Amino acid sequence: MNISSKNSGISANQQKPFVKQLEPYRKHLADIHKNGGFDQLESSINLPFSKHIDQILAKAKGYQTKTLNTVVVIGIGGSNLGTQAIYEALPKKNVELLFLDTVSSSHFSNILERLTKTHKNKKQFLIVSISKSGGTAETIANTEVLLSSLKKSYGDVRDRLVVITDEGSKFHDETIKQKIDSLTLPKMVGGRFSVFSAVGLFPLAVAGYDIRALCRGAKSAIEDGTSSITTKNIAMSLAITTHLQQKNGFNIHNSFFFAPELECLGKWERQLIGESLGKEFDRNGKRVNVGITPIVSIGSTDLHSMAQLYFGGPRDKFTTIVSIKDMHRHFVPKQQLFPTLVENLAGKTLATLMEAVVGGVVAAYQKSKLPFVECVFDKLDELSLGNFLQMRMLQIMYLGELMNVNAFDQPNVEAYKVETKKRLQNA
Amino acid sequence: MNISSKNSGISANQQKPFVKQLEPYRKHLADIHKNGGFDQLESSINLPFSKHIDQILAKAKGYQTKTLNTVVVIGIGGSNLGTQAIYEALPKKNVELLFLDTVSSSHFSNILERLTKTHKNKKQFLIVSISKSGGTAETIANTEVLLSSLKKSYGDVRDRLVVITDEGSKFHDETIKQKIDSLTLPKMVGGRFSVFSAVGLFPLAVAGYDIRALCRGAKSAIEDGTSSITTKNIAMSLAITTHLQQKNGFNIHNSFFFAPELECLGKWERQLIGESLGKEFDRNGKRVNVGITPIVSIGSTDLHSMAQLYFGGPRDKFTTIVSIKDMHRHFVPKQQLFPTLVENLAGKTLATLMEAVVGGVVAAYQKSKLPFVECVFDKLDELSLGNFLQMRMLQIMYLGELMNVNAFDQPNVEAYKVETKKRLQNA
Repeated sequence: MNISSKNSGISANQQKPFVKQLEPYRKHLADIHKNGGFDQLESSINLPFSKHIDQILAKAKGYQTKTLNTVVVIGIGGSNLGTQAIYEALPKKNVELLFLDTVSSSHFSNILERLTKTHKNKKQFLIVSISKSGGTAETIANTEVLLSSLKKSYGDVRDRLVVITDEGSKFHDETIKQKIDSLTLPKMVGGRFSVFSAVGLFPLAVAGYDIRALCRGAKSAIEDGTSSITTKNIAMSLAITTHLQQKNGFNIHNSFFFAPELECLGKWERQLIGESLGKEFDRNGKRVNVGITPIVSIGSTDLHSMAQLYFGGPRDKFTTIVSIKDMHRHFVPKQQLFPTLVENLAGKTLATLMEAVVGGVVAAYQKSKLPFVECVFDKLDELSLGNFLQMRMLQIMYLGELMNVNAFDQPNVEAYKVETKKRLQNA
Repeated sequence: MNISSKNSGISANQQKPFVKQLEPYRKHLADIHKNGGFDQLESSINLPFSKHIDQILAKAKGYQTKTLNTVVVIGIGGSNLGTQAIYEALPKKNVELLFLDTVSSSHFSNILERLTKTHKNKKQFLIVSISKSGGTAETIANTEVLLSSLKKSYGDVRDRLVVITDEGSKFHDETIKQKIDSLTLPKMVGGRFSVFSAVGLFPLAVAGYDIRALCRGAKSAIEDGTSSITTKNIAMSLAITTHLQQKNGFNIHNSFFFAPELECLGKWERQLIGESLGKEFDRNGKRVNVGITPIVSIGSTDLHSMAQLYFGGPRDKFTTIVSIKDMHRHFVPKQQLFPTLVENLAGKTLATLMEAVVGGVVAAYQKSKLPFVECVFDKLDELSLGNFLQMRMLQIMYLGELMNVNAFDQPNVEAYKVETKKRLQNA
């Protein structure tokens, strides 16, 4: 992965005072990394180094039979976005992951049909139900409805359920009481920072992905992102750049992925940026209503719908252009059916066309003097994805520090939850 | 469909001067509607009344054999977003639509595999290649690659291709020369306003959807949206509300759909809002860099990732909350496996849970004094979707008028296209 900030609009000199400002926080992160454990808000950076990976792998192995072909992940927000981001970005394997997040009868019916019509015995599927708190209404409702529906075809399927939740939550207690298999995550690790806990690693391991490589990628991002060598510490540098451009009015972050398989990675970033930095109060209790609004674009698709706004509209978007080298092997035949419609296509691979588009977009951003960062993946694999996700999580921690907000809480979410509970009580 | 603006933050009295300002434009639209024809920028409003629908239905009928089971729609931006929005929102039928927009070898391979492995003869599929100008690089490249790949299995498949393009474009000429089946759309109808031309109607008709009902819904939106009776003219009223709140700093529009099947409708709206209103220059040639940035949220999914930003972060989002009555018939069993985790779930349908969530969100928006519009669908069907899409298109025309921009062009898209062409030439 190669990241270039040369078009970010912020020079190394402009960054210097903020590198100094962040030095105590960098040291704090480096200490957490050095000391290990899970007693700090930032402790998620210790997940990729943790011994829990062995336990996850061992448990996953137990379920990886020749019969297994489907894993249903029931979870919402931080409980499924990271898993889905990695799963959608990588080539499919023999075991398929299906995701059930909100309540939706049509989506639910599709999944139920898959588990009952094409399956003959319950060992062909596994249900992974994930709720950090154990009290997420949609996840519990979906789990209840799915298990009771499956009962009609297979009898009790609690032996096909693995629960992932906080150690000591009511959900965890219930699994012990009912002898349901479970894994836990450390309480201090927030949902949006939990992808390298059992939450993300267990379903991916069962599906056959190399979670050790994911963690290797994450580890190297942590070594870099806690380093005092400024040129190595890309997470810090991107945080400073984003912060300064936000102060210049670029308060929307556009993740522009030139690969449709990265759309879910964008959705994971949305939560990470939106929920961590969107705050009513700063750390001094002052009302600030700050935040960066994350948007996700897919190239070249969205060039045909959003490029006009991006190049002509309000100058309020800071963009990360993400592309992958040499993705598309198919080529346009030399003998075209319609040779007169688009020039210079004959004999070219789709990769060449995509590279020309990305190059064109980069040049157009430069000409428009809009700030952007370029990120080029040599290859989409566990190693590079692990590296990217962890780098982003560190960047957001540094950004929280720069914006003087608590990047680890989400107090305003309570507002609608309280109202929903009232309505459910009266329904 | 029931739309309520009572929480938009704009009173009927505040709207009055703008209703007066828009009166000449309303008359202009009413005249176009009365006179018919396709010689005006706004002529897309005549599509649902046009005789071309008979022709589209007749052609679609010719392809609706018992053998047909897959239609591949090759198109990007305005050439597929509307079709996809409607298709994803409605229950599946016997003929499946697959969409190929950007160039992506992995996506392409999936589609090719579907057309070659599970198909035995070419009458099982139809390729619809759509490019308004006839010169869209991705669409032409995908068409060339797909037809040449299919040749290996089926020989010449040009008899399984229908082209949709501007009357008189080079693409149209080629179809005549090569005796390829084709349909055209009027030149004055822009891509993002073309869903009720052959672009949207033909693939949907082949797939068995009721395009007459779609057009009936659209027609009633046009009757309402060109009406001088203010209470009837919701498109105009929403345009005024959105405009005034944009001037108050709410320059992001959040389409919050409480139904995952409407995500593609959101993507269609993104283009409509983004491309129509995001402009570097106003109609007097003054540099303005205005626009409304559209974002799409899915409830309840995104409550678990974005609610913190929406309720705590910058007060810059004007929201439309869209929900559907009584969608989800499944219910949580009275005998739960985990009765202690979430209160008041036992015996409730998923619809009740979703309604409690929507109610909770509405209450939280009210408490936060954030402006929003509520839109409740009684039912998702062709009629209601046709009505909604056409209402939005009219709203955007009125918004263009209020913001003093040309809602029908996209001059800034050229910037990257020119650069892409250069690179393709040298590749």
